Amino acid sequence: MEKRYLFTPGPTPVPPEVLAATAAPIVHHRGPDFRVLYERCLTRLREVFRTESEVLMFAATGTGGFESAIANLTSPGDRALVVSAGSFGERWVAMAKAYGADVDHLRYEWGEAPSPDDVAEHARDAKYVTLVHSETSTGVVVDLQPLAAAAKEAGALVVVDAVSSLGAVPLETDAWGLDVVVTGSQKALMTPPGLALVAVSDAAYAAADGAGAPRFYFDWARTRKAQQAVNAAFTPAVSLVAGLDVALGLILDRGLEAMFAHHLRLGRACREGAKAMGLELFSPDDDRSAVVTAIRAPAGVDADELLLLLRDRHGVTLAPGQGELKGKVFRIGHIGWFDVFDIASALSAVELALTGLDAPIERGVAAARALEAYEDFAAA
Amino acid sequence: MEKRYLFTPGPTPVPPEVLAATAAPIVHHRGPDFRVLYERCLTRLREVFRTESEVLMFAATGTGGFESAIANLTSPGDRALVVSAGSFGERWVAMAKAYGADVDHLRYEWGEAPSPDDVAEHARDAKYVTLVHSETSTGVVVDLQPLAAAAKEAGALVVVDAVSSLGAVPLETDAWGLDVVVTGSQKALMTPPGLALVAVSDAAYAAADGAGAPRFYFDWARTRKAQQAVNAAFTPAVSLVAGLDVALGLILDRGLEAMFAHHLRLGRACREGAKAMGLELFSPDDDRSAVVTAIRAPAGVDADELLLLLRDRHGVTLAPGQGELKGKVFRIGHIGWFDVFDIASALSAVELALTGLDAPIERGVAAARALEAYEDFAAA
Repeated sequence: MEKRYLFTPGPTPVPPEVLAATAAPIVHHRGPDFRVLYERCLTRLREVFRTESEVLMFAATGTGGFESAIANLTSPGDRALVVSAGSFGERWVAMAKAYGADVDHLRYEWGEAPSPDDVAEHARDAKYVTLVHSETSTGVVVDLQPLAAAAKEAGALVVVDAVSSLGAVPLETDAWGLDVVVTGSQKALMTPPGLALVAVSDAAYAAADGAGAPRFYFDWARTRKAQQAVNAAFTPAVSLVAGLDVALGLILDRGLEAMFAHHLRLGRACREGAKAMGLELFSPDDDRSAVVTAIRAPAGVDADELLLLLRDRHGVTLAPGQGELKGKVFRIGHIGWFDVFDIASALSAVELALTGLDAPIERGVAAARALEAYEDFAAA
Repeated sequence: MEKRYLFTPGPTPVPPEVLAATAAPIVHHRGPDFRVLYERCLTRLREVFRTESEVLMFAATGTGGFESAIANLTSPGDRALVVSAGSFGERWVAMAKAYGADVDHLRYEWGEAPSPDDVAEHARDAKYVTLVHSETSTGVVVDLQPLAAAAKEAGALVVVDAVSSLGAVPLETDAWGLDVVVTGSQKALMTPPGLALVAVSDAAYAAADGAGAPRFYFDWARTRKAQQAVNAAFTPAVSLVAGLDVALGLILDRGLEAMFAHHLRLGRACREGAKAMGLELFSPDDDRSAVVTAIRAPAGVDADELLLLLRDRHGVTLAPGQGELKGKVFRIGHIGWFDVFDIASALSAVELALTGLDAPIERGVAAARALEAYEDFAAA
């Protein structure tokens, strides 16, 4: 009966009313009950994506949704600019190569922020440019609008990995001219994993028409046509759609702007608390870092060992470093159904575990500082 | 507070303990809690598929799982024999063509049963042959073993759509030499939709190695390698995996042979009850028809109108005719979490609704005859 805490950036904790909706008796996907729910959910998605376009829904996770972009847009030899500064950017390089794209990999060190000038220079011959809005592996949220504008100005389609950002930080699909925006259900949208959501612009549909790689399940045109008739192309994951519908309702009731402000404050609280403990941030200490905070393990401490201790002794799950950051950093997620008490609990658990590992940290200050930072914003 | 009944062949009703498992607090997919569950689920899948091979799990529905076979096996121009006798067989024709296969479409009328001689004749130059074990659109379950043997003898790989059959009727992946067997979570496996499950033989892996179409999310080798390390390639649909684990436990506790016998009896009960009412079967009246019973609407009755009445007045959802059978047949599913009282309720509702439509049927006999047919088997 130990309590368990999930403080990871995906899957994220799911509110009980969303879980309850996923556990309701199954309805048939071609019946009127589901169609009402499905149509409302698709409408709510357009609101959260801030787009007039159809947001395509696939039974898949975020990687599958991103693959729909690569598969629909890549004919063999097409030039693609893939910008990376962490694990997920590098995954899209491998994926675009698997589809036979002529990939220009604009690679930054993990944790760096891409520059619009570099993108402008490299995007010139590209059919599409892929950008990662929030690089979950490093905690960096890029300033997306100028990067997208640079790519667009060069004449490329803009494909955005917004898997961990959408709903947590500002993203304007239509106003920023983003051609493809991909997210998953299991991040800021507070739903279990298993749904990929993809907004596609008219220009992107036109580029995919009669072109691209072989595809069927992830074919945009087929899915769009089916959704417009409110009649899914293939059996949807009906229980997850029911959950997503409730979660989107919660988000829109609170309001997107309020959600963005809330996440900004959670990020600030997490960073201030960690610093107060004497820890060094890996994520940038800026207000865009509202998704996940990557923190360096103190000298002499293996981050993965810290995570095991947190889980086994304290019932707390944080996220490990990925790839080249494995063992060096740990990550506290704060997207979706999180509040400041979660941040305080996560930091308190880190404090206890690091104390157990004899790390030289400042005790008794992190949680208080986090609460204070969260409140400062409200007062300002 | 009207009660609702779902008597469709997918999604199927899900037992409450499975729904409850899907609604448990979310766990992280890289953490030890999930890994224990994931490994057990993968082991149970091998038992249900009756294979020693890894059963690959994708966050997708059955069509996505089938596409993994087409994508991994089809290099442009590869010859594929696709056998169809209904809606799903025809879907695989469209899919294989989308992947650039040189498709030999061995087409039977909807409701016919393919012959091993035809398959033997057509399979000679094919890299792979696709067979539909249970054609959900017609209710026909084919005698799979001789069809598969004919394809194998011709030197082709055998790819089986077992989406609505696996767990309901006998299927021996290894003993029958099936190279690829695809199912979904939402049929006889009594779990909400969103998981595709694919058993792959060594010969099929070898054929896919360095060949096939561009793919990443559905790449077999990547997923197998990840599963063998009990560390999913991409975020799995953790809540659905938790549900599937419970459902597989229920199935294996009862025993696969007992499940097969149960489904055979349910099919028999449904057919006998429908005939007693004076209705004409579309599905064959044989004991393999254990998945779904397709029934012709009486003269003068539109099947879709009947379904609407069933839903609106009686709270009962049956499945419509698909494609060329639309409006002509209706289908009662009986795979997964069904018992004979469900059959009796479905038939009773049909009886009431048809009476409401002034159709000339025999009243007061269907439910009794269904119960009797179910019991006859036990006594025999």
